[in-house]
Amino acid sequence: KNILIVPGDGIGQEVTEVGKSVLVKIAEKFGHEFSYDEALMGHVAIEATGNPLPDETLEKMRNSDAILFGAVGHPKYDNDPTAKVRPEQGLLKMRKELGLYANLRPIKLFDELLGASSIKPEILKGSDILFFRELTGDIYFGEKGRKNDNNTAYDIAEYSRYEVERIGRKAFEAARTRGKRLMSVDKANVLETSRLWREVIQALAPEYPDVTVEHQFVDSAAMLLIKDPRRFDVVVTANLFGDILTDEASQIAGSMGMLASASVGDSTGVYEPIHGSAHDITGKGIANPLASVLSAALLLDISFGLKEESDAIIAAVDKLLKDGFRTKDISDSSTPAHLLLNTQSAG
Amino acid sequence: KNILIVPGDGIGQEVTEVGKSVLVKIAEKFGHEFSYDEALMGHVAIEATGNPLPDETLEKMRNSDAILFGAVGHPKYDNDPTAKVRPEQGLLKMRKELGLYANLRPIKLFDELLGASSIKPEILKGSDILFFRELTGDIYFGEKGRKNDNNTAYDIAEYSRYEVERIGRKAFEAARTRGKRLMSVDKANVLETSRLWREVIQALAPEYPDVTVEHQFVDSAAMLLIKDPRRFDVVVTANLFGDILTDEASQIAGSMGMLASASVGDSTGVYEPIHGSAHDITGKGIANPLASVLSAALLLDISFGLKEESDAIIAAVDKLLKDGFRTKDISDSSTPAHLLLNTQSAG
Ligand SMILES: CC(C)[C@H](C(=O)O)[C@@H](O)C(=O)O
Ligand SMILES: CC(C)[C@H](C(=O)O)[C@@H](O)C(=O)O
Repeated sequence: KNILIVPGDGIGQEVTEVGKSVLVKIAEKFGHEFSYDEALMGHVAIEATGNPLPDETLEKMRNSDAILFGAVGHPKYDNDPTAKVRPEQGLLKMRKELGLYANLRPIKLFDELLGASSIKPEILKGSDILFFRELTGDIYFGEKGRKNDNNTAYDIAEYSRYEVERIGRKAFEAARTRGKRLMSVDKANVLETSRLWREVIQALAPEYPDVTVEHQFVDSAAMLLIKDPRRFDVVVTANLFGDILTDEASQIAGSMGMLASASVGDSTGVYEPIHGSAHDITGKGIANPLASVLSAALLLDISFGLKEESDAIIAAVDKLLKDGFRTKDISDSSTPAHLLLNTQSAG
Repeated sequence: KNILIVPGDGIGQEVTEVGKSVLVKIAEKFGHEFSYDEALMGHVAIEATGNPLPDETLEKMRNSDAILFGAVGHPKYDNDPTAKVRPEQGLLKMRKELGLYANLRPIKLFDELLGASSIKPEILKGSDILFFRELTGDIYFGEKGRKNDNNTAYDIAEYSRYEVERIGRKAFEAARTRGKRLMSVDKANVLETSRLWREVIQALAPEYPDVTVEHQFVDSAAMLLIKDPRRFDVVVTANLFGDILTDEASQIAGSMGMLASASVGDSTGVYEPIHGSAHDITGKGIANPLASVLSAALLLDISFGLKEESDAIIAAVDKLLKDGFRTKDISDSSTPAHLLLNTQSAG
C-alpha cells in the first residue's frame, strides 16, 4: 500500500508530520508495509511551480492508495480579492479530479473534553454526529465571474439529480449502521437546488424504511446544532451548507483541532483535518495534531479496511487525553504546564 | 402615524397581536395617536386570494409609515418541493418591492436569561452583537430554475458594487456608534460574489478610520460565534450567510423567541421576529411574544425616532424577566408554574 503525504500550507506541514509518524508506528506494530511519497499543493506549490495543484502532484495522487492531506491557504490571497491564482483552487481541483463527492465529517466528543467546549456539558453529553457533505457540486463548482464592466459578480449553484442521489445513498446507508436517523439540510423554501435536493431525498426514503428522515432548513439546523446537538445522528447536505455547519459543529467536539475528515468517491480517498492552514499559529509548535492523527485513523479504516489498527489510534488518543495531555486549544487554566503538549510531542 | 399589522401565518398571528397591544399601550401612555390597519400575507393570503402578497397588501404597505410583521410559511409547501406558489414568495417580493436592503438583527442577551442558553454563561456574559444582513440580493433573488429535462437545478447568486456599498456603509456607521469593530463575513476563498464583497468593504474602510475591520470566512465565523461571541460587535454579511448566522446567533440570546429584527431601506420599514411561523407550536398559546414586542420597540425607535418610548418597552421586558415570568422556550425546571406565561398574558 502506498500513501501520499500532502502537507500543504501553514500548520498543515506540522500536523501532517505527526499524522504520518502515527501511520509509521502502526505499520510497525501490526506488521504492515506502507510506502510513503510526498507532494506539493496550495501556496507552497504556487511558490515552487506557479500552480496550486501541479500535474506531478495530481499524477502521484492518482497512483496512490490513499492520501493524508494537511491544509491549504495563505493570508496573502485572502487579503487580495483580485488574485488570479489561489491555493484553494488546488484543493477544489483535487476534489473534482479525484471525484471526491462525499466528505465525511464525524463529530465525536471525547469524554475527557466535555468541559473544553463553550457549550454546556449537559447539552453536549453523548453527542455523536456524522456529516455527509457533498463535495464536488453546488456553488463551489458552477460558473462564476464578473459582468457589467466588473461591477457585478455572480456565482452559479447547480445540482443534478444524480449528484444528490449518490451522496444521499451514502448517508442513508451510514444511518442504517448507526442511530437510524437522517437529517437532510437544505433551503428549499428559497433555492431551486434545494427543492431538487429535497425531492431526491424524499424519493430515496422509501428504499430505507428503517431510517427516519427529517428535513431542516439550514438556518434552523445552524440553530439546533447548538441548542440540541443530540437531536443529530447522520446529516446530509450540500457543499456550502456542509462547509458552514461542520465548522460550527466543531465546537461540539471542543475544538476544530480534534476533527478529522474523509473525502471519498470514485477512486483514491483523501484524509484531512477540518481545520485550515491557520497561519496565525504556524511555526509556534502549538497546533493540535490530533485532527491529523484521527485522519490517519479514518484512512486505515475506510481506505484500507484496517479497523483494528484504526481503533488502536483512537484508543491512544483517548488515553493521551485521559492522562491529561493537552494542546493549548483544548486546555484550560487547570492544565499543569508539564502536560501542555507541543505539536511534536503529541505525536 | 399609521402602522400596518401583517400577522401572516402560524404563531405570527399570536405574537403580532401582543406586539400590537404594546404599541397601543405606549401610545396611550405617551399621548401619541397611531392608527392601525391589517393585511394578509403568506399562506393565509394564498388561501384567501391565491397570491402570497396580494396587490392590496402591497398597496397598504406602501401607504403605511411602518409595518409590524409576524411570519410566513406552512409545512404543506415545505413537504412539497414542486409547489409553484409558496408563502415565502410573498416575503421575498415584499423585501424587493419595498427596497428593504438592510436587515438589522440585534443579538442582545438580557442578563436574566444568561442561564437559558445552551452556551456557558461565562462565554456569553456581555455579548452584544448587531448583524447587518443584506436582504434584497444574493442567491435569493438571482435567476433560478431547472434544465436538462428537469434533472438539473440552478440558482444564481449576484451582487453589484452598489448593493454591497450601501449595506456596508450602514454597518460602518453603526459600528461608529458602538464598539467600533466591524466584522465582514464572506467566502472570498471560493465565491466571486464574496471577492467583490471583500473588495468593496476594503475600499470603504479608509473612510471610517475609527472602525477596526476584520474579514472572516463564513465557516470560521459560524464557529467563532459559539466559541467566542464577545469577539463580535457589528457584523455585515450577504443575504444567505446572514440568514444562517443570525439563526445560529439566536442561541446567544437564549432563544429565537427573544429576537427582533428591522428591515429598512428606501421607504417603509418592516419590523418582525426572526423566528418563523412555527406551526408545531401554533395555537398552543406557548409562543414567546417578546420578539414581536421587541420588534415594536425597534419600530418606534427606527421608523418614528421615539427613543424614550422604545426604551420603555425594553425596560418592561427586562422587568418582566426579572420578576421571573417565562414562556416555555426560556424557562427551566426551576420556573414556578404561576410564572409560566402563555402568549397572551405576556403581553
Ligand atoms: C479552504 C476552503 C476552500 C475549504 C472549503 O470551503 O471547502 C475548507 O473550508 C474546507 O472545509 O475544506
Ligand atoms: C422564510 C425565509 C424565506 C426567510 C429567509 O430565509 O430570509 C427567513 O428564514 C428569514 O430569515 O427571514
